[in-house]
Formats: sequence, structure tokens, C-alpha cells
Amino acid sequence: MDLIEETLASIAPLDEAAMRDARDHQARLTKPPGALGVLEDLSVRLAGLAGQCPPPRPEPAAVAVFAADHGVHAQGVTPWPQEVTAQMVANFLAGGAVVNAFAAQVGAGVAVIDIGVAGELDAAPGLLRRKIAPGTADMTAGPAMTMDKARSAVEAGIEVARELVASGARCLLTGDMGIANTTASAALIAAFTGLPPELVTGRGTGIDDATHEHKVEVVRTALARHGFLDGLDQEPMEVLAAVGGLEHAAIAGFVLGAAALRVPVVLDGVIAGAAVLVAAALSPDVLGACVAGHRSAEPGHTAAIEALGLRPLVDLELRLGEGTGALLALPLVQGAVRVLHEVATFDSAGVSEKSAGAGGQSAGRP
Amino acid sequence: MDLIEETLASIAPLDEAAMRDARDHQARLTKPPGALGVLEDLSVRLAGLAGQCPPPRPEPAAVAVFAADHGVHAQGVTPWPQEVTAQMVANFLAGGAVVNAFAAQVGAGVAVIDIGVAGELDAAPGLLRRKIAPGTADMTAGPAMTMDKARSAVEAGIEVARELVASGARCLLTGDMGIANTTASAALIAAFTGLPPELVTGRGTGIDDATHEHKVEVVRTALARHGFLDGLDQEPMEVLAAVGGLEHAAIAGFVLGAAALRVPVVLDGVIAGAAVLVAAALSPDVLGACVAGHRSAEPGHTAAIEALGLRPLVDLELRLGEGTGALLALPLVQGAVRVLHEVATFDSAGVSEKSAGAGGQSAGRP
Repeated sequence: MDLIEETLASIAPLDEAAMRDARDHQARLTKPPGALGVLEDLSVRLAGLAGQCPPPRPEPAAVAVFAADHGVHAQGVTPWPQEVTAQMVANFLAGGAVVNAFAAQVGAGVAVIDIGVAGELDAAPGLLRRKIAPGTADMTAGPAMTMDKARSAVEAGIEVARELVASGARCLLTGDMGIANTTASAALIAAFTGLPPELVTGRGTGIDDATHEHKVEVVRTALARHGFLDGLDQEPMEVLAAVGGLEHAAIAGFVLGAAALRVPVVLDGVIAGAAVLVAAALSPDVLGACVAGHRSAEPGHTAAIEALGLRPLVDLELRLGEGTGALLALPLVQGAVRVLHEVATFDSAGVSEKSAGAGGQSAGRP
Repeated sequence: MDLIEETLASIAPLDEAAMRDARDHQARLTKPPGALGVLEDLSVRLAGLAGQCPPPRPEPAAVAVFAADHGVHAQGVTPWPQEVTAQMVANFLAGGAVVNAFAAQVGAGVAVIDIGVAGELDAAPGLLRRKIAPGTADMTAGPAMTMDKARSAVEAGIEVARELVASGARCLLTGDMGIANTTASAALIAAFTGLPPELVTGRGTGIDDATHEHKVEVVRTALARHGFLDGLDQEPMEVLAAVGGLEHAAIAGFVLGAAALRVPVVLDGVIAGAAVLVAAALSPDVLGACVAGHRSAEPGHTAAIEALGLRPLVDLELRLGEGTGALLALPLVQGAVRVLHEVATFDSAGVSEKSAGAGGQSAGRP
């Protein structure tokens, strides 16, 4: 059994007994039942993922920023030159990007993975060199990558998840860097959701109307080229290889690896959403480990998380990538679990509960 | 000049030059322009508040939990006994409440202020004893408090803001505790927005249909009693005294005090929203200092922040109060400012900018 099969085989459903324990425990805590809204449900799910209540605290946390280039860049889908991918990797390693600032804010580690950057990168502390290829091929002319490369990138993502957890991480976050990677994301999302390209293709870094219109047509051309426009009968890995990026493949593997280890993984924006569509097609139970960190401004991201049934924790019109949206959500995830560890119960704190039966019967009611 | 007048006189508009500097600086940072969405605008506003770019980092932060009881509790608006207010204060001081867990998560201090709890509380570390009265009177029978008491509570709130800033806090957060305080909040919000009671009165801790229906009628009775149902011609302080709580008065003062010191104040939910309607009626410029931490599940909260023109940072159906929603937003506020301090510019990082003019002109465009 190879690494992908082994990983898929070890992903299990959420533990119902631990979720019941968490719900019971939440009901005894000194707060009105349900008062923590979405975070209460999240704490229950993370208990189910861990198989125990309370689940382990999701800390320390580490964001993995998977960087790769894209052959479809040649189609003119963005005004940013391709070399920005490598330049931004250097910026991450020097600590000068937004992902570094946000990671410092929330106390997360940053790992940068060259999974497919065009050109050679110098070795540097914090850089994991796992290049599968120097970028993908142009998906409008043929498959973005071979099946072998797609599988290798997924395996690399699984291995990164394993390594980060082995080095102590108890919460993983996805990040990405790759000029033109919203184009590949749109193609993946259109293929998996069946939505037309114009509904899932966004403005990425903020392109103008003419470039956006062209980008939609590039996505449509790629979908037509690979036979994805009229329903999908290909295997998930075939779709990934046809129109995905090497970072999409690696993130899909990373998420599968986290789920197999029963460690929560906080998803960043549209690139992660596209990658998780691949991962969930391979194993729907992977979603038990996935927390949608935020909703990005990209329309394809909303389409992806709706298809996956995930609710984002933060919704602030971010469209940066790098893992920035996932990092902003991290304290919310950690806070949700912290409640199960630290908050007193009505009994232990000597706090009265509300009167029994229907509400409103306090003494003075007229 | 008394403390309230002095505070109102020192609240000034945002500094346009500092905001321009912040916008210019954001445009030079290594990210697409606008890619941080709402947080980019927030960083600009906080520069305007501080009058410099970058603005000081909003840390350390402190949440002030103002606790008080409400005479309207006698009307049977909630199934929770009134003594829960004092019991929860003890829970806060013992570190057992959700506010303590979230404050620990984000590294904020917690100050608990007895501004009007029924009964005597023992002295304890972390408790500021500023009781103006042992709760308000029943607003359906007469004014909730005298104008003198309302003014004293506002002054106490200003003083708490001053003390926290004097002791080092560079970001303040509002918190509250008071059984029945969503009823007083609904009355304040209906009075200031002109919306009917049924649109702004929520289920608070999660009351049933019958209690909710009764609560709406209690709010309507109070509004009619004080002549607020057909347009508002009373002064803000009169409205506050008529239907507000002592914690609403203190939070209004706290927010005014923060704005006068040009320190950002992150608002919790519906109680803060109601209090800021009072504060903004006294001085619209107070809003420059206010950050809506979250949107609570209470319908009145949405009405209040829409009337105030504030956009919440977190929206997760929380309805707990205590400052919990504000605390969850704190890392987002701190992250927004951190970007201005730490992120590299295109020049400094050697990252290429996008090609000039309309997008999409990269070499390979067909």
C-alpha cells in the first residue's frame, strides 16, 4: 500500500461518544446553553476528531505555505510577473510578509515549502525543498501535470503534515503562494462543483475587467480541453493533474495527512478550498478535520466551501492567500477548545441555573 | 467643567494626514493593493485615531467587565435569577468564566467593575468597586435611574478607561454582566433608532417564545411610559437614565474616555451597541475609536451597529456578553496594525510589482 492509500485508509469518521461528552460538558458550563454559537459546535467537532473530551489544545500551531508556479500564467491571466512567486518565498523566509506578521500575532510557526517554484531557490532556514517540477504545464494546452507528479505532490503534502505533527504541532494551517494560482483554483472548483467558469473565477490580486473576462475564458478553455464542462466522470486525481497546481496537490495531501493523524487543519482561502474539493472527493471523512478559517473575496471560494458544507470563521474580504486568513481564525479555534478545558461548571462555581420549565416565571412576573 | 464635559471636549475627529500616510504605506507593502480587505481600512482608521502612521500597537489590551442589576428583572423577562449577576462576578474573579478563557487566549487583562450589582460584593483582586446603586429601578414604572446616578455611572466609566490606560493598556475592550440587561439594551436601541420593540428585542440567554413575547411588551411599555414611542426629543442622558442600565452608562463613559485618549476600544455585543448609541449621540466623533468586535445573535445589536455605521469583525452567533466577542476580535485588530509595523515594502524586499496599466499584458498573452 502506498502513502496515499495508507493515509486514506486511516481517515475515520468523527467519534460520536466524544462529541456527546462535549455537548454534555458544554451544557454544564457557566453560560447559557448555545451562547458560544458556532464555536460551541466547533468544540464538539474537535472532540469528535480527537476521540476525547476535552480534545487536546490546538497548539502549538504551524502554517505550511506551499509555493508553486503555473504554466497557465503564459495565458496572461494576471499582470504580476511569474518571478514574484520566488521573490515572495524569499520574503516569507526573511520574515517580511503578512503571513509572518499574522503568524507572530497568533504564535504560530511558519514552514515554507517549495513544491514547484520555477527556477532554483537557495537553501534557507525554514524552507522545505520538495520541488516536484519547476511549475506546471499550461492546462489549456494539455494536462497541467502528469499523474505521477500529481501523486508525488500529494505525497509530499502528507509528509509535510506528518513532519510538522512529529515536531510538535497540534494544529495545522494551510498557506499558498503561486502567481496565477487562482486561475487553477477556479478550474478545479468549476470541475468539482459543476458551476460555470464565470461564477467561480474571481479577480485574484485585483485584476481589471478585461483581464478578468479573459481569465474566465482561459478557465473555460481548460475545462473544455479536459472534458469537464458537461459533468465530471473522471477520477479526482485525474482532475487534479489536468487543471490543478502543484500546491493544490500538496495541500490536498497535507489536509489528508492532518485528518489521518486526527489533527485539526485550518484552511485558508480559495486555493485551499479547491484543494479540499480534491481531498474530500478522495475521502469525505477528511472534512471532520477541516476548519474553514475565513471566506475570501474570491467567488470560487464561497462556491467551494458551500459545496463542502463548511462555515468560515472570519469574513473580512481578504484575498491575499499565504495562510493569512487561516492565521486570523486560529485564536478562535484555540479559544473554542480552551472553553472545554478551563471554564467552570454551574456546580463548581456555585452559579444558579435558570428556573426549570418554560422561561419567564421569576417571582415578580405580573 | 465636569468630567463628562471635559471628556467630550477632548474627543476630536480622525487625523486625515495620518490616514493618508497609512493608505500610502499600505500601497507599498508586499501584497496586492486592498488584499487585506476590512483590516486594511481598519489599520488606516487606527492611524487616524492615533494621529500617526504606524499607530501604536494596540497592546497590552484590557477588557473591562461592567456588572449591574436591573429593576426590570421583576417583570419576568428572563428565567435566570437576579443573584446570577453577583455569582458570575465571583466566577470572573476566580477565573472560571468564558471571558477569562478568551482573555488568556489573546493575552488581555480582565478588570471587573461593580457599577451596580444588587447586594454587597467582597473586595477581591481584580474587582473595582464603583457601585453607584444596587441596581436600577424598574423602567416600566419610572426612570431606571436618576440623572445624577446616570452621570455618576458615565463618569465612573470614563475613570476606568483613564485608569486602565494609565496602567499601560493601549487597547480597551468592553464587557458586561447583568441579568436582564438585554431588555434595557432593547429599550435603548428602540429609543435611539426608532425601530419598533419587536424588531430589536431578542432572546437574550435563549428564552422561549412566551417569555420573548412578554419581553417585547415590557420594552414597549417602558418606551410608552417615557414617551419614546413616537420620535425622540429627549436628550441622550435623559434616555439613558430612563431605560438604561448602570453598565450601559458606565460603558458609554468608558468608550468616551477611550476616544478622548485616542485609544481604540473594541466593542462586545448588544449591551455595548446600546451604550455606544448613547455615547455617539453625545459625541459622534467617538465612533472613530470604536471597533465592532463581533455581531451578536441579538437582533438589536445588528440594528445598533447599522445605525452606528460599524462593521463587525467576527460573526459567529455568539450571545454571551462578558466581553467574549470583543476578545475574539482582538487578534484581528492587533494583526491589522502589526502589518503597518512589520511587513516589508516591494522596494525593501526586492519583489516585482505588477505591470503598469491595465492587467493581463504579460508576455505570453495570445
